[in-house]
Amino acid sequence: MEEAGRIDHLSGERQKAQFDLQPMRVLLAGGEHELDVAQRVAAIVARDPVFSKANRTRLSREELYKNSLRKASHGWKLIQQLKLTEEEAFKLRSLVDEPTFTDLHWGMFVPAIKGQATDEQQKYWLPLAYKMAVIGCYAQTELGHGSNVQGLETTATFDPATDEFVMNSPNLTSTKWWPGGLGKASTHALVYARLITDNHDYGIHAFIVQIRSLDDHKPLPGVTVADIGVKFGNAGYNTMDNGLLRFDQVRIPRNNMLMKLAKVTKEGKYISSDVPKQLAYGAMVYVRQSIVSDASVYLSRAVTIAVRYSCVRRQFGGQGNDPETQVIDYKTQQHRLFPLLATTYAYRIVGQWLKWLYSDVMNRLESYDFSTLPEVHACTSGLKSLTTSVAADGIEECRKLCGGHGYLCSSGLPELYAAYVPACTYEGDNVVLLLQVARFLLKTLSQLGGGVKPVGTASYLGNLPVLTKQGSRVSQGTDWLDHSNLLYAFEARAARLALVAAQLVQKAGNEAGFEQHSIELIEAARAHCELMVLSKFVERLQRGVPGRGVQRQLDILCEVYGLFLLVSRAGDFLSTGCLTPTQVALAKQQLQNLYTEVRPNAVALVDAFGHTDHYLGSILGRYDGDVYPNLYKDAWEEPLNKTVVTDGYEEYIRPILKQEFLPSRKARL
Amino acid sequence: MEEAGRIDHLSGERQKAQFDLQPMRVLLAGGEHELDVAQRVAAIVARDPVFSKANRTRLSREELYKNSLRKASHGWKLIQQLKLTEEEAFKLRSLVDEPTFTDLHWGMFVPAIKGQATDEQQKYWLPLAYKMAVIGCYAQTELGHGSNVQGLETTATFDPATDEFVMNSPNLTSTKWWPGGLGKASTHALVYARLITDNHDYGIHAFIVQIRSLDDHKPLPGVTVADIGVKFGNAGYNTMDNGLLRFDQVRIPRNNMLMKLAKVTKEGKYISSDVPKQLAYGAMVYVRQSIVSDASVYLSRAVTIAVRYSCVRRQFGGQGNDPETQVIDYKTQQHRLFPLLATTYAYRIVGQWLKWLYSDVMNRLESYDFSTLPEVHACTSGLKSLTTSVAADGIEECRKLCGGHGYLCSSGLPELYAAYVPACTYEGDNVVLLLQVARFLLKTLSQLGGGVKPVGTASYLGNLPVLTKQGSRVSQGTDWLDHSNLLYAFEARAARLALVAAQLVQKAGNEAGFEQHSIELIEAARAHCELMVLSKFVERLQRGVPGRGVQRQLDILCEVYGLFLLVSRAGDFLSTGCLTPTQVALAKQQLQNLYTEVRPNAVALVDAFGHTDHYLGSILGRYDGDVYPNLYKDAWEEPLNKTVVTDGYEEYIRPILKQEFLPSRKARL
Repeated sequence: MEEAGRIDHLSGERQKAQFDLQPMRVLLAGGEHELDVAQRVAAIVARDPVFSKANRTRLSREELYKNSLRKASHGWKLIQQLKLTEEEAFKLRSLVDEPTFTDLHWGMFVPAIKGQATDEQQKYWLPLAYKMAVIGCYAQTELGHGSNVQGLETTATFDPATDEFVMNSPNLTSTKWWPGGLGKASTHALVYARLITDNHDYGIHAFIVQIRSLDDHKPLPGVTVADIGVKFGNAGYNTMDNGLLRFDQVRIPRNNMLMKLAKVTKEGKYISSDVPKQLAYGAMVYVRQSIVSDASVYLSRAVTIAVRYSCVRRQFGGQGNDPETQVIDYKTQQHRLFPLLATTYAYRIVGQWLKWLYSDVMNRLESYDFSTLPEVHACTSGLKSLTTSVAADGIEECRKLCGGHGYLCSSGLPELYAAYVPACTYEGDNVVLLLQVARFLLKTLSQLGGGVKPVGTASYLGNLPVLTKQGSRVSQGTDWLDHSNLLYAFEARAARLALVAAQLVQKAGNEAGFEQHSIELIEAARAHCELMVLSKFVERLQRGVPGRGVQRQLDILCEVYGLFLLVSRAGDFLSTGCLTPTQVALAKQQLQNLYTEVRPNAVALVDAFGHTDHYLGSILGRYDGDVYPNLYKDAWEEPLNKTVVTDGYEEYIRPILKQEFLPSRKARL
Repeated sequence: MEEAGRIDHLSGERQKAQFDLQPMRVLLAGGEHELDVAQRVAAIVARDPVFSKANRTRLSREELYKNSLRKASHGWKLIQQLKLTEEEAFKLRSLVDEPTFTDLHWGMFVPAIKGQATDEQQKYWLPLAYKMAVIGCYAQTELGHGSNVQGLETTATFDPATDEFVMNSPNLTSTKWWPGGLGKASTHALVYARLITDNHDYGIHAFIVQIRSLDDHKPLPGVTVADIGVKFGNAGYNTMDNGLLRFDQVRIPRNNMLMKLAKVTKEGKYISSDVPKQLAYGAMVYVRQSIVSDASVYLSRAVTIAVRYSCVRRQFGGQGNDPETQVIDYKTQQHRLFPLLATTYAYRIVGQWLKWLYSDVMNRLESYDFSTLPEVHACTSGLKSLTTSVAADGIEECRKLCGGHGYLCSSGLPELYAAYVPACTYEGDNVVLLLQVARFLLKTLSQLGGGVKPVGTASYLGNLPVLTKQGSRVSQGTDWLDHSNLLYAFEARAARLALVAAQLVQKAGNEAGFEQHSIELIEAARAHCELMVLSKFVERLQRGVPGRGVQRQLDILCEVYGLFLLVSRAGDFLSTGCLTPTQVALAKQQLQNLYTEVRPNAVALVDAFGHTDHYLGSILGRYDGDVYPNLYKDAWEEPLNKTVVTDGYEEYIRPILKQEFLPSRKARL
């Protein structure tokens, strides 16, 4: 987003653009309305001094946390006083760009109540949650238990004598560990625990447990709660109070069990409800699709910084008095940077499709139509895994693309990486999720024989006989610019890898085979996910995009996305016989030609993401490109520079210089 | 290294080992003597409370820096009072494991004086430096200039009237920026500047400039110096005072120019000396070979942590009351972890060879034999680039392999990554270095026609006619366990990629072609470097290694290293026709079989690195595997846990809960 100012070192770059910015912005935002909301809220956040991020990496953990509470509180005040809509409030929290307890309250606690509480329970809890008269977090993982929810050890034992559940942490590894907002802020926790009644263990269920007093915020009797300590990165996720929680026989009313899917009666009888369990999947689909959207947003911030600074930065070249060459003009730089730019666009588009898929599946769930659930589950799991892994690595790659200065916190990139990378682990470990996609692929393949036609993103598997036999039609470089050729190559690769993996598993026989061939299964799943992204990008382009030059730019980015992946994973395409070495070589050439087309549009393509300087929080990525004077100015804010002669000189440096450590007589003897 | 203690959760793992630990330790340390030094010094460091790292990530920058001065000072005191040898002192500094100004003093300032000062100058400066009566840093890079040393803008203008050089920073981008130890500690800087005399610019030369008073440590007149601010990671490199430096017409004696290679006379005449310029390369070779050694050390720390914790951590599996499966037993975990273990061993061995190469080239330089310099330069540049990139990514991969807990600073991994990753940038950007290797390859190929026989690590290129025609002999899986087959495949791939790149460059014609095809050149250079590592590993094994089972383990690790790379880069091998899809598939199978052989030895193989718990600084990587109780204990050290009700509750949380932010009447209207 343009900022007022006299200097614009990048104006020359901006003039080179071959497309109109406004329609591209609309497309990326997902519509005129969405763009309007984003711009209005971004302006509110950017101009409010409370939301300043300038000093963030220089604060101690305590200062950082307190300041983060201040921002959360101020944000909530603004939301109420400006009467922001839910959409605007959501945007505000995300643009404040500081992980905090309200993320969990709104993003996990409230949706879990909606998904798992009965109507009556919702009537009680939701109004309290909506006005934040309670602050909730989501306490699932334990010190010894992450991905395997069924292995959780916290117990909730029903006591019919008092009509209460007794929450207990039977051992050290059952300590709740990691929940955000738990450590210092929340008053309530949505706790997952083993439900025990009638001497029977009914497995994991959800309970609302008050953990702190609403009067003085002290932990309630029997509750041990604390922050788990410093995490990766200078500020990053350290604004969040990820917590630990232990229960020593803590009693809660029976009705604090969320009873939409199952209930326990006064007498201690466990009764499953008639409500189909599949309804609970809605929340998971929602969370994962929003993670995919975020992947594009986070990556786009890193790419914006790296593209702009690559135009500012010069190294080598330049004859005589000419300036050195802009780093962005080097092929090696383009080959690392432009595919990430293309990936950001690709993920934005697949994210928009997932949003549609979510609303579609919610509509179906309402009428108890569960037919698309397996495919939706595979889509969201797989895309969550693919996009978060690629975005995390991509952010770090962008940091490296900024040379030494990317290592300074003032570049914004170290924080961005540290704050983003947990997305690879939370809400489903990325490897575990790919194995779930693989299971879906195996099942789809096994059902082909029975005449079940695969649907949606798996429908290409219906074309297996062709895909496994017929090679690619590409015979000259420009054939790769035909999206159907790209798509065919990706479909053939995914289909063949899935088939190979399925045959291996089948040969080994069942579960043991699944573990034994998990490496091949992961490869097949990844190929499937990469295909999904490409195919949604191609489909979107087929629908046409308005605006001068916009479609052309998107075509190019789609091709860069596809061809870069094709070249990077050439081993897959060649070993499965999908492509010949010549076809791969042609793809390499085309890819490099495309870089030349991206080059003049690079700055405008990142401008289109519309990030404010506040949101980027990066001197290297400043809209005006005025990098070096501001890096210099910022250095003087470093606390160590408050004194000219460093604290510690007298005790530690001077004795060295003055030779006060010569061996004592004793040591010499 | 074993620590005393009752618990050893990993003893079962240790008993599975199929080789003797002691000879493996000797091999990894580089000899009995080296192992003895390492163990003695490690024990000194580990038991000294001043060197404790326990609280490091919880300190503010100022506390962190002061504490780092304390350690440096204490270390220097020990070195003097215990009369440690140079080798022991070096080991002590590295095992204290905290980047600080002494690293630059000993690692850059002293070697630069040795390499570039005349004998007479050395007689003056070295005694001062050896007793640290001066503290020196190495001021090369500038705010606007990194890799391109020839583009530096700081000037040193000779004034014959006073027999002085006038040091000046003519503009903002000429500010010295990044030098470690400069910001707050050093009294002197070795400054690279454009030498101007007689109105002529003679390019970049080195000058010793005093920047701070030896009396009170204040910056001298005309000198502006400060710390450049917070860097990536919680502690990491933030113990170092990377600095900025500006000169406003600062005068230094003429003789402070280092004059071994060129001098300026009293009259201002510039005279190149008879000393061959090549002699200056010795220092660069030394620094880069030590970086390669460090790559193995740093990666080995991350691998140690990940292997041990993967044995402790359990997820899924386990029937009934059986414990869950150890994470290390999953194929997907092995496929990410064991190749990194193998890489660590491979880099250790190539590092030891580079150490030999350094002493060999120094002997040659003394007798003015420069024949091996181009190859040595390519080796050290290429291996610096390859090993630092792989080690940095590998450390971060190990962090991810530890699941969520790897994200906690108490895992030691975030700090390790943040402290290590600058190695990819300093002492030669990794992409620029690979391009230098590519230049060497092009030159070697172009000289083949003239009958120049390539030597050393390039000698395989003499076999070009065979390598480019003849395929691999591998016809069954076990053929891949024949190291000559592995080696042949890597030689063929490197040769073919180099030839393809050379032909592209030649076709395009000269320099423009070099830039235009830099992507292909980088690929060829990387293939060459990967081959170097493999071939040195194979050569070492051919010489034989003593000790029960040791050679067998190394054989396996060598094969894992080679086959994993082969499978990862299958695109290269297939597209150049070096291998068939069947041969790649056989390699994949063999690789997975090898993992099964590594598995029982994994813990012993990391024990062999001999890292103390102090040096690892990781709760997840503890020798005794007693992870969870210590994670829990450590959380309570978090400063936020000093209070039960968080600071900020009254101002920020309570008003939310008590509904004090309801829209004002004004806002409602």
